[in-house]
Amino acid sequence: MRAVVAQPAPDRPRILGDASRPTPSTGRPRDVIAALAETARAALDEVGRPLHDVVAAGCAAPGPLDHRTGRVHVAPNIPGFREVALADELSAALEGIPVFVDRDTVIAAIGEGLAGAARGQRDYVYVTVSTGVGAGIVSGGRILRGASNTAGEVGHWPIALAGPRCGCGSYGCVESFAGGRNLAEQFGSVEASDVFRAERAGDPRARELVRNAEAALEALAIGLVNVLNPARIVVGGGIAEHEPDHVLVPMRRGVRERAFAVASSACEIVASGLGADVGMVGAVIAAQQRAAGAGEWLG
Amino acid sequence: MRAVVAQPAPDRPRILGDASRPTPSTGRPRDVIAALAETARAALDEVGRPLHDVVAAGCAAPGPLDHRTGRVHVAPNIPGFREVALADELSAALEGIPVFVDRDTVIAAIGEGLAGAARGQRDYVYVTVSTGVGAGIVSGGRILRGASNTAGEVGHWPIALAGPRCGCGSYGCVESFAGGRNLAEQFGSVEASDVFRAERAGDPRARELVRNAEAALEALAIGLVNVLNPARIVVGGGIAEHEPDHVLVPMRRGVRERAFAVASSACEIVASGLGADVGMVGAVIAAQQRAAGAGEWLG
Repeated sequence: MRAVVAQPAPDRPRILGDASRPTPSTGRPRDVIAALAETARAALDEVGRPLHDVVAAGCAAPGPLDHRTGRVHVAPNIPGFREVALADELSAALEGIPVFVDRDTVIAAIGEGLAGAARGQRDYVYVTVSTGVGAGIVSGGRILRGASNTAGEVGHWPIALAGPRCGCGSYGCVESFAGGRNLAEQFGSVEASDVFRAERAGDPRARELVRNAEAALEALAIGLVNVLNPARIVVGGGIAEHEPDHVLVPMRRGVRERAFAVASSACEIVASGLGADVGMVGAVIAAQQRAAGAGEWLG
Repeated sequence: MRAVVAQPAPDRPRILGDASRPTPSTGRPRDVIAALAETARAALDEVGRPLHDVVAAGCAAPGPLDHRTGRVHVAPNIPGFREVALADELSAALEGIPVFVDRDTVIAAIGEGLAGAARGQRDYVYVTVSTGVGAGIVSGGRILRGASNTAGEVGHWPIALAGPRCGCGSYGCVESFAGGRNLAEQFGSVEASDVFRAERAGDPRARELVRNAEAALEALAIGLVNVLNPARIVVGGGIAEHEPDHVLVPMRRGVRERAFAVASSACEIVASGLGADVGMVGAVIAAQQRAAGAGEWLG
């Protein structure tokens, strides 16, 4: 987990303090929230500013959650973290400063839309290809939320009629082929980077896994273009950043060769403009907008 | 092609006159437009009312089009029908009455949302399973249009990494497995109903095709629920109407068993409330709303 302290600035919020901590291995909500608060305090200490100088805090969390209430339904990679009132409890742990929680991919979409690679766009998708695969969707200038605020789980659109089991309980999902955790598990390594390294060294099993991951991302990009007709797909996340030839290149090729011409020519597929800071910059902007009562487009 | 004359009514527009004509086999834009105008006049003749009594006309067309200008980019099933100013030309053929063109699936979504099975919903998808597979998506009370107004082509989300060629030029699309035209072609019959009849008679090839079509529709439903989180998926079209056990049943089962729990429990998958009239009722409502300057949700 990471926390920053930032100040408004014309182009993008300026990060003043920055702190990181490992997620507590117990995964217990109480421990996770205490660690989050501790990380935030460490970032403030770095700047030498007290907690009561903070106007608002934004918090990016994974998995299905309700951004209005700040309740996390499930955090897929933290077993036991279910139905947690994250915004309220984190606020309580931080002397009552307002805390706004939103999904990590939505926060990233907000960051890219207001200060990154989708600036000025009204129809775009932020896709992360990292441990998992997910998205924040903006349509007609609004975050696409859905009926219970869980829209955007593009990693769990099935793109194969059979295929590997996914952490979500289904199979054949984009993420089951292209998510870093699944890639590493299927290869029997610790990190997805091991798979890409082995692929470069000519390992045939790694090559097949990478080829399938590329095909899954190609299918995802085609689907997004045909179904949502975005002007931009911004692709971030560790795997996209380190392996663009296995992520952006197949996505672009797929759309060019297989999507509807009108939709394809309307869409540019680009790398994240905020890179590793996308979650932090997005959280700062989201907190700023929601604290100011603005950000109606946030839904 | 079909045309109706309708009058506003509290529950849903009341259809007074109704006429049908075959689509001209030449497929030439001029012939198609002349036949459309002729069909509209025939429906009016049935009621004994002159053209100048008509306040506005709505026209549902397939394929990528721009609903604001009324220009059809491509009509996938009418070769040669490309870049046609359908609204303007049809209006000219009908003594200048205002004509509003929109995609068939969007028109159906409008109909189902205001007078059918999605009444009162703000997040829903109308899916048609017929000759082709497509959708109209409503998100947060607005039609999801996309950057160039072609959003909703859910039939062309790839759900298999390989698979049959699709009419769109891609492969592995939902439609390539579950669209009636593709089903019949792969079986070597004229109509998709032949495939379902053979499946019931125990034909193993038909059984495999139908099983794949079900799997494709299951994947589609799971994807829609995970990505868009709709409160309702309304399923219409000839195949859905005649073969609900092969369409609605697998879609419901897939979502129940494989989609995210929060999103799945928020979503009901139901049959079209307007059935074979969905396009006509939707076109009447769309024309009514747009002629009145309302219908901002139509985008």
